[in-house]
Amino acid sequence: MDIQKLTAEALGTAFLLIGVVGSGIMAQSLTDDIALALLANAIATGCTLYFIITILGPISGAHFNPIVTLAFAIKGEHPWRLVASYIPVQIIGGIAGVWLCHIMFDLSLFQTSSTARTGVNQWTSEIFATFGLLLVIFGGLRSRPDTVPTLVAIYITGAYWFTSSTSFANPAVTIARAFTDTFAGINPAHVVAFIVAQIIGLAIALPMIRLLFSDETPKQP
Amino acid sequence: MDIQKLTAEALGTAFLLIGVVGSGIMAQSLTDDIALALLANAIATGCTLYFIITILGPISGAHFNPIVTLAFAIKGEHPWRLVASYIPVQIIGGIAGVWLCHIMFDLSLFQTSSTARTGVNQWTSEIFATFGLLLVIFGGLRSRPDTVPTLVAIYITGAYWFTSSTSFANPAVTIARAFTDTFAGINPAHVVAFIVAQIIGLAIALPMIRLLFSDETPKQP
Amino acid sequence: MDIQKLTAEALGTAFLLIGVVGSGIMAQSLTDDIALALLANAIATGCTLYFIITILGPISGAHFNPIVTLAFAIKGEHPWRLVASYIPVQIIGGIAGVWLCHIMFDLSLFQTSSTARTGVNQWTSEIFATFGLLLVIFGGLRSRPDTVPTLVAIYITGAYWFTSSTSFANPAVTIARAFTDTFAGINPAHVVAFIVAQIIGLAIALPMIRLLFSDETPKQP
Amino acid sequence: MDIQKLTAEALGTAFLLIGVVGSGIMAQSLTDDIALALLANAIATGCTLYFIITILGPISGAHFNPIVTLAFAIKGEHPWRLVASYIPVQIIGGIAGVWLCHIMFDLSLFQTSSTARTGVNQWTSEIFATFGLLLVIFGGLRSRPDTVPTLVAIYITGAYWFTSSTSFANPAVTIARAFTDTFAGINPAHVVAFIVAQIIGLAIALPMIRLLFSDETPKQP
Repeated sequence: MDIQKLTAEALGTAFLLIGVVGSGIMAQSLTDDIALALLANAIATGCTLYFIITILGPISGAHFNPIVTLAFAIKGEHPWRLVASYIPVQIIGGIAGVWLCHIMFDLSLFQTSSTARTGVNQWTSEIFATFGLLLVIFGGLRSRPDTVPTLVAIYITGAYWFTSSTSFANPAVTIARAFTDTFAGINPAHVVAFIVAQIIGLAIALPMIRLLFSDETPKQP
Repeated sequence: MDIQKLTAEALGTAFLLIGVVGSGIMAQSLTDDIALALLANAIATGCTLYFIITILGPISGAHFNPIVTLAFAIKGEHPWRLVASYIPVQIIGGIAGVWLCHIMFDLSLFQTSSTARTGVNQWTSEIFATFGLLLVIFGGLRSRPDTVPTLVAIYITGAYWFTSSTSFANPAVTIARAFTDTFAGINPAHVVAFIVAQIIGLAIALPMIRLLFSDETPKQP
Repeated sequence: MDIQKLTAEALGTAFLLIGVVGSGIMAQSLTDDIALALLANAIATGCTLYFIITILGPISGAHFNPIVTLAFAIKGEHPWRLVASYIPVQIIGGIAGVWLCHIMFDLSLFQTSSTARTGVNQWTSEIFATFGLLLVIFGGLRSRPDTVPTLVAIYITGAYWFTSSTSFANPAVTIARAFTDTFAGINPAHVVAFIVAQIIGLAIALPMIRLLFSDETPKQP
Repeated sequence: MDIQKLTAEALGTAFLLIGVVGSGIMAQSLTDDIALALLANAIATGCTLYFIITILGPISGAHFNPIVTLAFAIKGEHPWRLVASYIPVQIIGGIAGVWLCHIMFDLSLFQTSSTARTGVNQWTSEIFATFGLLLVIFGGLRSRPDTVPTLVAIYITGAYWFTSSTSFANPAVTIARAFTDTFAGINPAHVVAFIVAQIIGLAIALPMIRLLFSDETPKQP
């Protein structure tokens, strides 16, 4: 039923933002070492992705990400009819997650971030991060579908470190993170460029997915 | 046999508290960086949950948590007859685990915590943490039962970071942690409010579980 | 063939000591924060246990530990004939691993540790650590044999933190660690008491394993 | 098709270098604690290995390493015809990955490393690291092929800590890391000796693999 799917997408994206934003708040309140804060942030985000994809995947597909929803629709594996409801629900769920975080950490509810995240290097990072995320999802689905929750969790945990943007790779997450002036925040003025970069990442990923994971590709060796 | 089940619940909850309390003592004795101590604490707790649920799950169901026992009973998946024996055994096992920890770390056996853990933000955290834990357990059982030990371990490792209470989400753990004046302790005066919050989390989780993981839900896509 | 089994036990135990001792040397040379050093040490040890048990388990059973060899023999799951060859091979492999470590880190080959590891609290820790290790192995074999490499790795990673001795739980490891005056060392004068504690842990574990994991126990629920 | 295989090898090796080099740059920019930087570096590398081997393994075998390609060819499990195309593609992919890293972190594109990595202890480490890597791959393929991505990821994460060279164990990675003057770099003058050591590791590993993992070896116990 659609209500189950949309609830799963909203709830999962809320959990994702709580994992990202909450762990950032907690870590930054406990240490001055930013690498240690980022390590906690990356591990907690990976943990969150693993459990939301495992439990909600069978219901909604566990996209939690407009780029992923679009990619499945373009590949003909997700009905276009649902794209228009998935995307707003993901964004609303994400923002709700940020607000719940603020309540759990006793911060003022409505905030906007003052953290600059901009520049060619960060946009290149977002292009690459989104490209990699889609490769991991579609490659995993072709070769070992049971590992997809682990794959996405592990990919993002690593990508926190190997991109200068810490790999948002998700427009709903990007928008929601503009609503928190904490460790994981992004200045609202820098959101659109991130989303454009993510869309470019999608555009680059699609032909690569077609080349590498076409149906002729042999499954598990 | 009931003796096997009750032994498993007592032993597993003792291990859980040793994992939580022992790693907190060790970490705090070795570093001044509280984020690093919490990271060790979270990782050791996740490790402990993974092995106790894997090895004891087939015997007792591996609840180690009165809220989980109640949830299974309410869902008709655990006999009410056993609820009244599971819960005290979990609490006694947990306290015994704390005491064994004190012996292993050469601390005085009987202690009560002086660590304040209170306030609307922490109670909201406990409501949310318990809600999430139950979703993870019941969602995992519906979609991928073999992953439940990993799911619970990963969930709690993450939840240490994304809630301000560090996610007790377990009345037996909450009571037992009142008996140690170390990193993981909780002032006995603040125990009841935590347990009330955990029960509220259970009340909110049940209808969500029914909505998302009802039998009509398709299994693994 | 016995030569395969004995090679596997020697090689695996050498790897185990390299994982334990090498990571301790590396970590201590890079940081003053002992908790961080212990975290690296625990993670590297867990990694090592995972790969040696996975690849060598099908050959020798992947004991790498005289206590484990004895436990399997007592349970009738390992020929007594092989006990007398497994144990010395494990000890020799372990010491060889420590020496290779010293070469890899440019330290003098022959050393004895000056690190005191003694006292009732540490002995209690070794009793408990060994008890837990055996429960994890035999419980895992009964319920989910495919997870045993992960179980042992995760158990020891956690047990580094929740026992004051950092969980040697292995006489071959204990003896070999006397031969290095680095982070993981143990004063040779304190070795015998550790081994006695480990044997007591074995004695306590056997009846508990019989109670919990007897053949009547239902497999995977 | 060869084009799929070669694309997979180039892309995977590029990702591997981005994981190694990028996480080193990020970590070093955020902390003064080198152990913490190495921990982030090791974790991110392990994450990267896991996802590239999982998704690209079914296409190209996921070597990303001339030593691994040679080993498979010598064992008769990879056509010699493809060795001559795999190896240059791995090296080119690796260097391209390093350059993309420099763009993502806003560093000058063309660099050579000034980090000395030399000496008998480091060469011994590379011999041992390569020996261990091959044992893990061939042992894993014989006993539990589905765990190979995890095995390699976990092996390298551990080996960062238990060898003094941090375990390059890969000529393509060694060459590519000469092109970055950041945390993961290696002085070009020290590259050849590392590669010689890796070849020696291969020569030692082959008879051990034959001894331990010959076809007569029983699979999964």
